[in-house]
Amino acid sequence: MDFEFNAVNTLWVLLGAALVFFMQAGFAMVETGFTRAKNAGNIIMKNLMDFSIGTPLYWLVGFGLMFGASMGGFIGEYAGVASAAHYGGIAATLAENGVPLWAFIAFQTMFCATTATIVSGAMAERTKFSAYCIYSAVISLLIYPIEAHWIWGGGFLSQMGFHDFAGSTAVHMCGGTAALIGAAFLGPRIGKYHGKKAKAIPGHSLTLGALGVFILWFGWFGFNPTSSLAVEGVEELVGKIFLTTNLSAAVAACATMLFTWVWYKKPDVSMTLNGALAGLVAITAGCDAVTPLGAAIIGLVAGILVVLAITFVDQVLRVDDPVGAVGVHGVSGAVGTLMVGLFADGSTTEAGLFYGGGAHLLGVQALGVVCVLGWMAITMTAVFLIIKHTIGLRVSEEEELLGLDSSEHGLSSAYADFAAAPGSIQPFAAPVPPERAVPVVVADYADEASDDRFTKVAIVCKQERFELLKQALGDIGVSGITVTQVLGCGLQKGRPEYYRGVPLDFTLLPKIKVEVVVCRVPVRAVIEAAKQALYTGHIGDGKIFVYGVENVVKVRTGEEGVAALQDSADE
Amino acid sequence: MDFEFNAVNTLWVLLGAALVFFMQAGFAMVETGFTRAKNAGNIIMKNLMDFSIGTPLYWLVGFGLMFGASMGGFIGEYAGVASAAHYGGIAATLAENGVPLWAFIAFQTMFCATTATIVSGAMAERTKFSAYCIYSAVISLLIYPIEAHWIWGGGFLSQMGFHDFAGSTAVHMCGGTAALIGAAFLGPRIGKYHGKKAKAIPGHSLTLGALGVFILWFGWFGFNPTSSLAVEGVEELVGKIFLTTNLSAAVAACATMLFTWVWYKKPDVSMTLNGALAGLVAITAGCDAVTPLGAAIIGLVAGILVVLAITFVDQVLRVDDPVGAVGVHGVSGAVGTLMVGLFADGSTTEAGLFYGGGAHLLGVQALGVVCVLGWMAITMTAVFLIIKHTIGLRVSEEEELLGLDSSEHGLSSAYADFAAAPGSIQPFAAPVPPERAVPVVVADYADEASDDRFTKVAIVCKQERFELLKQALGDIGVSGITVTQVLGCGLQKGRPEYYRGVPLDFTLLPKIKVEVVVCRVPVRAVIEAAKQALYTGHIGDGKIFVYGVENVVKVRTGEEGVAALQDSADE
Amino acid sequence: MDFEFNAVNTLWVLLGAALVFFMQAGFAMVETGFTRAKNAGNIIMKNLMDFSIGTPLYWLVGFGLMFGASMGGFIGEYAGVASAAHYGGIAATLAENGVPLWAFIAFQTMFCATTATIVSGAMAERTKFSAYCIYSAVISLLIYPIEAHWIWGGGFLSQMGFHDFAGSTAVHMCGGTAALIGAAFLGPRIGKYHGKKAKAIPGHSLTLGALGVFILWFGWFGFNPTSSLAVEGVEELVGKIFLTTNLSAAVAACATMLFTWVWYKKPDVSMTLNGALAGLVAITAGCDAVTPLGAAIIGLVAGILVVLAITFVDQVLRVDDPVGAVGVHGVSGAVGTLMVGLFADGSTTEAGLFYGGGAHLLGVQALGVVCVLGWMAITMTAVFLIIKHTIGLRVSEEEELLGLDSSEHGLSSAYADFAAAPGSIQPFAAPVPPERAVPVVVADYADEASDDRFTKVAIVCKQERFELLKQALGDIGVSGITVTQVLGCGLQKGRPEYYRGVPLDFTLLPKIKVEVVVCRVPVRAVIEAAKQALYTGHIGDGKIFVYGVENVVKVRTGEEGVAALQDSADE
Repeated sequence: MDFEFNAVNTLWVLLGAALVFFMQAGFAMVETGFTRAKNAGNIIMKNLMDFSIGTPLYWLVGFGLMFGASMGGFIGEYAGVASAAHYGGIAATLAENGVPLWAFIAFQTMFCATTATIVSGAMAERTKFSAYCIYSAVISLLIYPIEAHWIWGGGFLSQMGFHDFAGSTAVHMCGGTAALIGAAFLGPRIGKYHGKKAKAIPGHSLTLGALGVFILWFGWFGFNPTSSLAVEGVEELVGKIFLTTNLSAAVAACATMLFTWVWYKKPDVSMTLNGALAGLVAITAGCDAVTPLGAAIIGLVAGILVVLAITFVDQVLRVDDPVGAVGVHGVSGAVGTLMVGLFADGSTTEAGLFYGGGAHLLGVQALGVVCVLGWMAITMTAVFLIIKHTIGLRVSEEEELLGLDSSEHGLSSAYADFAAAPGSIQPFAAPVPPERAVPVVVADYADEASDDRFTKVAIVCKQERFELLKQALGDIGVSGITVTQVLGCGLQKGRPEYYRGVPLDFTLLPKIKVEVVVCRVPVRAVIEAAKQALYTGHIGDGKIFVYGVENVVKVRTGEEGVAALQDSADE
Repeated sequence: MDFEFNAVNTLWVLLGAALVFFMQAGFAMVETGFTRAKNAGNIIMKNLMDFSIGTPLYWLVGFGLMFGASMGGFIGEYAGVASAAHYGGIAATLAENGVPLWAFIAFQTMFCATTATIVSGAMAERTKFSAYCIYSAVISLLIYPIEAHWIWGGGFLSQMGFHDFAGSTAVHMCGGTAALIGAAFLGPRIGKYHGKKAKAIPGHSLTLGALGVFILWFGWFGFNPTSSLAVEGVEELVGKIFLTTNLSAAVAACATMLFTWVWYKKPDVSMTLNGALAGLVAITAGCDAVTPLGAAIIGLVAGILVVLAITFVDQVLRVDDPVGAVGVHGVSGAVGTLMVGLFADGSTTEAGLFYGGGAHLLGVQALGVVCVLGWMAITMTAVFLIIKHTIGLRVSEEEELLGLDSSEHGLSSAYADFAAAPGSIQPFAAPVPPERAVPVVVADYADEASDDRFTKVAIVCKQERFELLKQALGDIGVSGITVTQVLGCGLQKGRPEYYRGVPLDFTLLPKIKVEVVVCRVPVRAVIEAAKQALYTGHIGDGKIFVYGVENVVKVRTGEEGVAALQDSADE
Repeated sequence: MDFEFNAVNTLWVLLGAALVFFMQAGFAMVETGFTRAKNAGNIIMKNLMDFSIGTPLYWLVGFGLMFGASMGGFIGEYAGVASAAHYGGIAATLAENGVPLWAFIAFQTMFCATTATIVSGAMAERTKFSAYCIYSAVISLLIYPIEAHWIWGGGFLSQMGFHDFAGSTAVHMCGGTAALIGAAFLGPRIGKYHGKKAKAIPGHSLTLGALGVFILWFGWFGFNPTSSLAVEGVEELVGKIFLTTNLSAAVAACATMLFTWVWYKKPDVSMTLNGALAGLVAITAGCDAVTPLGAAIIGLVAGILVVLAITFVDQVLRVDDPVGAVGVHGVSGAVGTLMVGLFADGSTTEAGLFYGGGAHLLGVQALGVVCVLGWMAITMTAVFLIIKHTIGLRVSEEEELLGLDSSEHGLSSAYADFAAAPGSIQPFAAPVPPERAVPVVVADYADEASDDRFTKVAIVCKQERFELLKQALGDIGVSGITVTQVLGCGLQKGRPEYYRGVPLDFTLLPKIKVEVVVCRVPVRAVIEAAKQALYTGHIGDGKIFVYGVENVVKVRTGEEGVAALQDSADE
């Protein structure tokens, strides 16, 4: 087939491919940020490898399955010069848009990889790496291409008028369903369910998770608008798609924020991040087919439903989905697809129910959702069953507790050196003026001082009083201290804290422990100085503990006893 | 109005919109990185929500205010099919460039959101979340659209020839002024000013902050060049804009680095990151109108002024701006706008003072700056006053000390699990060869050993000596140790450290505390082994403390006393 | 020269320039993530400054050297309006593609900066900042422009038919060679080599490193396809370049993963990330000239060779390259360039050896590699020698141990406040049901309680048992505890862990130390409660230590002794 290539459309598709590729970084950051540090390297690796394994497999087999006019003869074809000859339906579209097959394969590869990568979040922190590689490969090789063929490759759903512009169903619900089945097969992480109660297991970096969400949102501007495969002649359409995509996400984030604010009493950060993603997933099917007002409503619905869906999965189904992938991709994908049947304005598809088109489109959308659900349920169940009974799906309890970074990759930690950074405690200036009412006079306690007895005074207090304490100790002649970060835990009291609406049932408050070893400076002087520096009259002022010390040695000079203390203790 | 759409220009505007959207991620990373960990989730949330709240409001109202030919009839209009009919001035531009209204609205939405998001950095770590949502909404709804109408929407400044190509004034100075007023209204964070002294409160992740700066710089390649709203016919212009934008940023970073190197004696990292941003902000007004040489000079001036401006705000005005937003966006925005009056080469505007055009343009630029300053001062003062006297602008002292993540969002920590990563201390190899001159012989001290007395030896030393110490202890038969990261604090001495030119007045040096409990191994042997492993003769070799222990129990076996110690202590 | 500008091609080149710019963020994240936290600010600063210093120098001098038809008269020329007059060879290309000189300079600036930034990774953690600025400037000013002139500016290699489409040699091998020479000059970091053994020094954030790799991969979609300098008329070619680039990277990651899985027994995360980069570097020379099958093979070879190369440099050459830049950029760049001579299909160049073209192209490719290697060896040796004997290349031992953030930038830490986040320890739910077989009854030990003696019980145990322990202690009446994160270190035993195939020869297991001070609650009750909560019968159940306490003071009430303990200890 002889194409007349179109430079703008080609550039558009390649730009879109690059943006959708970048979503892999977004998924990696979301998934690692919302899970624990001991599995960070493992999750990164899974995100990297689903893309890297899926790319050659989709190139060799998947693409042919998805778009091939005939099911034979596609394997290895693109090893030579690309030809659109075998690709009946899509070839006409590419010819019309002037987009080379190469660019189109690259673009489609990114969608395939997105589907595969969705699964890893729900199955995080307990799936064997080898099992992950295998099922991810099967998704890219067969499962995704076949259902996507139904929708985009000229298959039966596309012939029936099923409308899924950029993949609410083909990509997101597909991935989200696999995620649900996988997480159910695996069972919950150790410690997730405690009798009847679901427990929150907070992630290790909300900032990386949020960065991932911003990257995904950014990448979505390739995912949705570029699915037009052209700009030329459809300028207004791609502009509208960009706008509906953004609007739905923004409204969804607002909806989630307000909904959690009412429900949990406080606006929940990580749930709102998920809300934005839910809005993006939901608008993906109909981004071209609805008005901006429709997009806003779709976002509104998705933003509320995702909270209910995540809670339902977590607390009713009791399936442990660490990042909320089932709610974000599965439920929002299905709902977004169905809502096309309500809000389609008739411009690019049959009109939906609310736009005078009757229930036909809604019925077709529902059929499509059911078919893909069924396909995923059957195939993924088979895949997970086979893996479970051969190489095994889940790591051992010991490996899970240790963390998959260590057990699966021999990696001591993704943040090996992190805590060794100097200055990791930064005492802040005192919140009250530093003048003390009554200076402590060492001489007052001079009779309590002794030259042959060492005493350690350990002061546990709030971090923000450190500055005052340090000055107070300096004033009475203490020349060195040792500071440790600790957590004070009051066993009965405490303000309840939430993570995605699930209560954290303990209260650990950060404190510092300041240790001073004194000999000539009287212990009583240290106690009084500390009391004056720390006293506010509020709960949490701190405690002081006194211990005996048998000896002190200063390494540099070899001095022991009293002499060893007559200098800064920090050296 | 019937458009002939232009595919390249449409793609260009959408690409620009995506890049400017991505700047939201940049702002989020800069603001969270330059503030404290206890507020990280809150800042992320503010960045997410100003965009998410602003998007629908700007779509419903703001865009109409900004570009509407008439002030009536715009609300909700784009709920239907977009029409450019109501948009007098801009409609002609869009028609000429062949850019659909949808794409243009999306692009403009991103600029509106950028303005709103600038404010959050200066008001970080103490602003009520509800108050934030409200004033951010008012900015997107009314305050920004009206002043931007003056400049870009056909208002009086645009008619006078005021030149602000991509928003040094309309976006950055506008946001920076709101930031200054807001931060002044709030007052400083607790602990920021200590008597007469401004204290540095360092941020929690310079790497995330730096990533944010790189993302912003990347996004600026959409912000500035795409403000042309076309490539076709203006290829050379957009190329020049790209180049001037990049050059100004690079020169500004160099200028800031050298200036801080001279002033603080060392090149300051976070200030230099701000310097690059200042160069970007300053060139934004005139990126199309100046030569590359002019751009370099604008960057040079901005890079130096931003240091002075941040210092002035911090130490003279005593307004606490945690991320330097007033200096970066406010001052650099104003200065960049004024410098168009000096360096405009006459190609796209009237020529500036240094290019033979006289002082007229400079006067118009100054007038524009003053008008926007006045508008912002009046409107934002009103907004903040109303909020202050109704729902309140600032959190309570207790909430601020606790951190806004917990108090405003019920989030225990944005890094909940972080420190629980295995291996968070990584002792390094010894810096000197591990051969010790004199092996410690346990037998030498055998008479000091006892079978019925436990002693704890706590060794505080440098991290880098850990490896040697561990070997030395192993050699004398110690089978287990416990390691804690501590900070040693010498109260009088220490090298002064700076953060953005403000001295940090304490010196906490990271140390490790290695604890050994011994019974049969003589205490003296432990002391000698430690001394030999740690001795270098330099200050900081460490100290050894000896304590009595009353009992030891080993959980697995239930053994107590001596028997409990005959195995690795780490189990 | 009068151009007819082409809007699509101009947009393409600017888009590419933006993407390649963004690679700076990728390099910054990779380099900081793979090195230690104490140098994070320094590495960020180096990445920022090589770009910022290089940009104006390349604009003033480098670009003229690289593309100038004559060597005279180029300096400062672009201070005025850009003209292509002086640029013989490239002017024709730009005229043909309709790309303005401004856009082309911007695009080329990004390539120059990429070359310079590669070096910083290999020389990380010990290079003086001032020395870095100088050699980086020289690379941008002279060394890169001259060798790139040979290849892309009409120089002798381009005339001979040397094919390096986007810079495997011109950019990556050039940077990688400089990196090798620089790292060799510097010598290894303190602690890197320990007698005969190379030690792993793990980086501080694998997640940031991985993010950097994703950003680089994303940016490469500008680096390679955009090097066509056009889309119009070469749509199929740019599509193919995109596809070959992506495929090579994906296959390389798979190859590295499998290779490390076999070699180290476990798939190595950080090495696989390097593998993906190696695939990208290797395909860069021939991305236009090989088939997808060829690209896959190039990726396969690069993915395996990079592991061998990094190991060779580390363990045989004993050159300390913290991020593996020599293997990733130097070796993969050379290998990728040579493989064009094997796999070129004849479509855009002479055909390679495996495609019937004989050995000629391979010979030319080898010659090009050797010439650039020689040029770099001579010039960089001279540069480093001069720096070494004037201002010095390496920081002092003390500065290195302290960290370059502090010693070079006066920055206390890039993560100053990090560890101060509340809740940095998150005890998890117990892995076994919380019902204990035998409740501990305090009364049983009542005769052991005393009213006038304080005892501290310190319990060192696994983090995951914390929840049970807390409940057990609460049940017997303990009202407050203090929790510290510690590392337990068993000196003989432990599972070996690897980092890039180099064993980490210690085993530090994260534990928590829970401290309780009791008086009325019998010590024996605490011990029994702890034993029951912690006992599993497996190694690692923990130890309990008992110490005498002389006094306790409660700050808020001033109470001492027994009274001070009758409340929560965490306040």
